[in-house]
Amino acid sequence: MKPIQIPPLDHDAMTQAAHRQSRLTKPAGSLGRLESLGLWLAGVTGRCPPPIPQRKAVLVFAADHGVAAHGISIAPPEVTRLMTLNFLAGGAAINVLSTLAGARIQVVDVGIQSDIPTRSGLRHAKVRRGTADLSVASAMTREEAERALEAGRSCVEAELAAGLDLMACGEMGIGNTTPATAMICAFTGASPREVAGPGTGIDETRLARKISLIEQALRLHRPNPADPLGVIAAVGGLEIAAMTGAILRAGEARVPMVLDGFIAGAAALAALAWAPAVRDYLVAGHRSAEPGHDRVLRHLQLTPLLDLGMRLGEGTGAVLAMVLIEASARILNQMATFEDVGIPL
Amino acid sequence: MKPIQIPPLDHDAMTQAAHRQSRLTKPAGSLGRLESLGLWLAGVTGRCPPPIPQRKAVLVFAADHGVAAHGISIAPPEVTRLMTLNFLAGGAAINVLSTLAGARIQVVDVGIQSDIPTRSGLRHAKVRRGTADLSVASAMTREEAERALEAGRSCVEAELAAGLDLMACGEMGIGNTTPATAMICAFTGASPREVAGPGTGIDETRLARKISLIEQALRLHRPNPADPLGVIAAVGGLEIAAMTGAILRAGEARVPMVLDGFIAGAAALAALAWAPAVRDYLVAGHRSAEPGHDRVLRHLQLTPLLDLGMRLGEGTGAVLAMVLIEASARILNQMATFEDVGIPL
Repeated sequence: MKPIQIPPLDHDAMTQAAHRQSRLTKPAGSLGRLESLGLWLAGVTGRCPPPIPQRKAVLVFAADHGVAAHGISIAPPEVTRLMTLNFLAGGAAINVLSTLAGARIQVVDVGIQSDIPTRSGLRHAKVRRGTADLSVASAMTREEAERALEAGRSCVEAELAAGLDLMACGEMGIGNTTPATAMICAFTGASPREVAGPGTGIDETRLARKISLIEQALRLHRPNPADPLGVIAAVGGLEIAAMTGAILRAGEARVPMVLDGFIAGAAALAALAWAPAVRDYLVAGHRSAEPGHDRVLRHLQLTPLLDLGMRLGEGTGAVLAMVLIEASARILNQMATFEDVGIPL
Repeated sequence: MKPIQIPPLDHDAMTQAAHRQSRLTKPAGSLGRLESLGLWLAGVTGRCPPPIPQRKAVLVFAADHGVAAHGISIAPPEVTRLMTLNFLAGGAAINVLSTLAGARIQVVDVGIQSDIPTRSGLRHAKVRRGTADLSVASAMTREEAERALEAGRSCVEAELAAGLDLMACGEMGIGNTTPATAMICAFTGASPREVAGPGTGIDETRLARKISLIEQALRLHRPNPADPLGVIAAVGGLEIAAMTGAILRAGEARVPMVLDGFIAGAAALAALAWAPAVRDYLVAGHRSAEPGHDRVLRHLQLTPLLDLGMRLGEGTGAVLAMVLIEASARILNQMATFEDVGIPL
């Protein structure tokens, strides 16, 4: 992969936005997080007020996982394909919430086991038919990991060409909290027992098996956090790799990126290992109910916008948070100032 | 005031909604609070799935406070009038966020000191020109408190006639965290020192003065929590009384009501003292940054939807939360079921 260049935030635009914020008809600081989000958007976009994000997109990357054969999810592996078809038919939670948030959806097959027929809204970018079982082999080769990353990057490229003000990425991949947990352990130094959770809702027996598989994988591969491509290849997933690529490309293009939950967090940790400056372009959409997500958020040093006990993935928490980000831009654009209304403050 | 009759939630509709929720294409419980909100909407509306709330309204009640003459706000009292004009001109935070949430705004003068010229969007319901200084006299008479309550009720009546699926109420009244704090102390038994906070952002000196004035008011009036009209008359505000009336009328009409922050919380405590069953029709839109709001939420036994450090009032936190409530209804209406997509679960 070519070197990643993340431009800095525009501090002049942020200073201007802070000044504008202080003149709006409200007590200073009284809009809390909406105010800091507005400043951040000014820094990201280099404009004050930052444009109201009209063109929003969520990329939903789907792929299968060899490790799912161990039954570490409540759902059988073929659900990855069925849910991908559901996304394309408009019946999933991400469809409903994206419509509400005004975000378009691009579904991307980066590694579903079986083939998905060509359909509007689907992008074919299959790198391989699912990963290998990470507990006994590398999930994929480094070259495959790189191709999955590039798939993510080129999806952002396509969205940029269509016009893009705000983006998120989500995922579908039965079993993917297992590779995500392994990646999080690799990047944060935590143990699988500390990070692994119930995912879709597995019981204690399956959770113990999941932890044991991740421990086995980490012993086998000894992933090096300074080599994010190696971490992804050894214990990651194709959709997670694509998300990492998308996050990095968004940062390069100065597009604000809303992170979803646990899986997106694993992808973001990989992106940060590549280019720490990408953090400036990230906002945490929500705190997932998956218990290990807190550790991820702390490591990313991001404070989530929403905390609704969601743990669905697909990008659902991220698109819901887009509404708050839009709100912050609207505040800076549309509110009157004290001068406008004659308040002497 | 005539007796309040709050119908119970429709438990059949809630059971149906829970069943439907369990068939939607997502792991059980994975949408967290959006799922429980959906069940609640089914109970409130008596329908499964509950209709997507299209017709949303926020009532913004404005009034002045005699106690504001003591300088217990960062803003001078005339800002109540100037901000009311700002609401009518569309330049305030509540205008921006209501537009985003798709809520119409009705501004109501229930007791601004000066007169506001007739304008589209303004309802004249002035009971008196501001309250008396509650630290030395009753804020208003019982008869005036009742008229302010009725003003709130009749505003809901007008919204019902226009069509109403979801509502919120907000307020504007320089100094109104002082009567709200006094009311909260009366209804919860807490001391002013425990509840009083910086409001718009006053310093320690003014906060000490504010606490002392509230202590004085509580000693003078000894408000009885079993007599909510008496509490409002002694230490309340005209806009807070109107909010209490609106909350009670919403419950009677089975309209879901989103509470805003600290002031709305005081109004809700008064409404609950009248008719505890009204709680079934309330949802806490957000947790205010005003420190005493937590105590109010605990007393109301409500868990806020948003926690963004906001403390502006006007209804801003409530209208932002409307988006999440709409999301919960959309989920129950628009998601495919496992049967639809052929997932065997």
